[in-house]
Amino acid sequence: MSKLVIVGTVAFDAIETPFGKTDKILGGAATFIGLAASQFDIDSVAVSVVGGDFPQDYLDLLQNKSIDISGVEIVKEGKTFFWSGRYHNDMNTRDTLATELNTLADFNPVVPENYKNADYVMLGNLHPLVQLSVLEQMENKPKLVVLDTMNFWMDNALEDLHKVINKVDVITINDEEARQLTGEYSLVVAARKIHDMGPKYVVIKKGEHGALLFHNDNVFYAPALPLEEVFDPTGAGDTFAGGFIGFLAKTDNITFENMKKAVIYGSTLASFCVEKFGTERMQNLEKNLINKRLQEFKQLTQFDIELA
Amino acid sequence: MSKLVIVGTVAFDAIETPFGKTDKILGGAATFIGLAASQFDIDSVAVSVVGGDFPQDYLDLLQNKSIDISGVEIVKEGKTFFWSGRYHNDMNTRDTLATELNTLADFNPVVPENYKNADYVMLGNLHPLVQLSVLEQMENKPKLVVLDTMNFWMDNALEDLHKVINKVDVITINDEEARQLTGEYSLVVAARKIHDMGPKYVVIKKGEHGALLFHNDNVFYAPALPLEEVFDPTGAGDTFAGGFIGFLAKTDNITFENMKKAVIYGSTLASFCVEKFGTERMQNLEKNLINKRLQEFKQLTQFDIELA
Repeated sequence: MSKLVIVGTVAFDAIETPFGKTDKILGGAATFIGLAASQFDIDSVAVSVVGGDFPQDYLDLLQNKSIDISGVEIVKEGKTFFWSGRYHNDMNTRDTLATELNTLADFNPVVPENYKNADYVMLGNLHPLVQLSVLEQMENKPKLVVLDTMNFWMDNALEDLHKVINKVDVITINDEEARQLTGEYSLVVAARKIHDMGPKYVVIKKGEHGALLFHNDNVFYAPALPLEEVFDPTGAGDTFAGGFIGFLAKTDNITFENMKKAVIYGSTLASFCVEKFGTERMQNLEKNLINKRLQEFKQLTQFDIELA
Repeated sequence: MSKLVIVGTVAFDAIETPFGKTDKILGGAATFIGLAASQFDIDSVAVSVVGGDFPQDYLDLLQNKSIDISGVEIVKEGKTFFWSGRYHNDMNTRDTLATELNTLADFNPVVPENYKNADYVMLGNLHPLVQLSVLEQMENKPKLVVLDTMNFWMDNALEDLHKVINKVDVITINDEEARQLTGEYSLVVAARKIHDMGPKYVVIKKGEHGALLFHNDNVFYAPALPLEEVFDPTGAGDTFAGGFIGFLAKTDNITFENMKKAVIYGSTLASFCVEKFGTERMQNLEKNLINKRLQEFKQLTQFDIELA
């Protein structure tokens, strides 16, 4: 059974959308990645930090999803990372209302001994030096390291970001971030420049417009399932990443053809994530519903064409 | 051989992009639609109007592409419709620099006698009353009427626009226009509302993000080919529409499955259109290049997935 190391935040989120608002609920990149990856029969560990205020119920929830939490440090006297945001009516843009780093400010990730030989590593959005530290703790070179990041680190830690980008196999990044990182408007050109920075595979996430997978001259385009309603986009990108690497770890196959499928799985799981607030939808997701939606994806995109 | 009636402008365009600018060159919706549809073995006629200033060379060009121009009225003392625009750096937005209606102001479309029994009708972007007039001249109800329109008519002739929308089978419209027409942000909900206005099929064009085809509860999503460079987007939407209806007319099959293929053909031809200024790329487009790009489309989108 493949081992997967997931580093990222385990956090409190408070979310406002046009549909309503929440108090502090379970959130964080590692949480969403872990829940998505838990759909696959793999052995995954979360590497993160929380404060003494973090409910045991939430830890139990992760454990019940077979996510090993031995890598989640609990700082008794500290408080858990908190993020609060308000989505605009288009659900594509949001304002950050609060970011309280709390215990995250001094986070030193520790990969548990029995996961240092993991073949799969998912570096969730965090300071690039924290991501690097996780990589440095791995005993062997993993089969596949996937990096997620965001514009905040481009603005504030670009040099460190380049160091970690250079060491990963796959980067997942959104379209605007790809443009910012490369100074190129064309995503084809941007992807090529990111290839040159290190990653052999570049996944560009375009939200409601789907995701592109680039590898040398190969391109694959997975549309997003057109949804009647996006209830809460929080965690969709992490859910995508978790589904992506979870599928690859489960199948233990990192060919381009298999990565296409991983993109489809990631998109499928993300399409569920946005249906309810926070992690609610991902906490109880039945396999037959996933299969149904995978079928919808096939119907959405597959065609049979004769040449002219 | 299926007959196709194309109504739309035959015009002069002057275009500025970050890559350069043109003097007055051949443009117009009917021109782009006709050139795209001419890739298919069908009998098409252009219904339009030009002034005495319109070069015989341009008319010859259309005729050489087997587009019947007996429906193109030449008003000797008049001037040809002229549009000028400047694209911004993102190539997705543009400013209109000039719009001179000229002979278009009094355009009364006349469908030539031998095309009044055509099975396929493409109503290119024009005043909705002009589009209606073409429909009213048809002897029998055509097998398929496709309507293209734009926000200008929503702002200035909404009531007339609704009249023509109610009479067509397929509407092609861009995402922002679909939202404007329905007041709905979700394209799924917008498409359903447009269904209720009449068209059984709704095609929503999303530019670089591809196109969606809706029919009852069926959805098909054709991505746009990721391009290294978009040189000039002028005419891409019309080229898409021309490829779409041209393929349907050629195959004489208006099932949803065949419309999927038509969307792919339309997207493929549009991907060529944007490679050069105006109609330049579409004037000389070899079948083997089209086939190569159709293959690229397959590779871009096709996957084979096992269920979990």
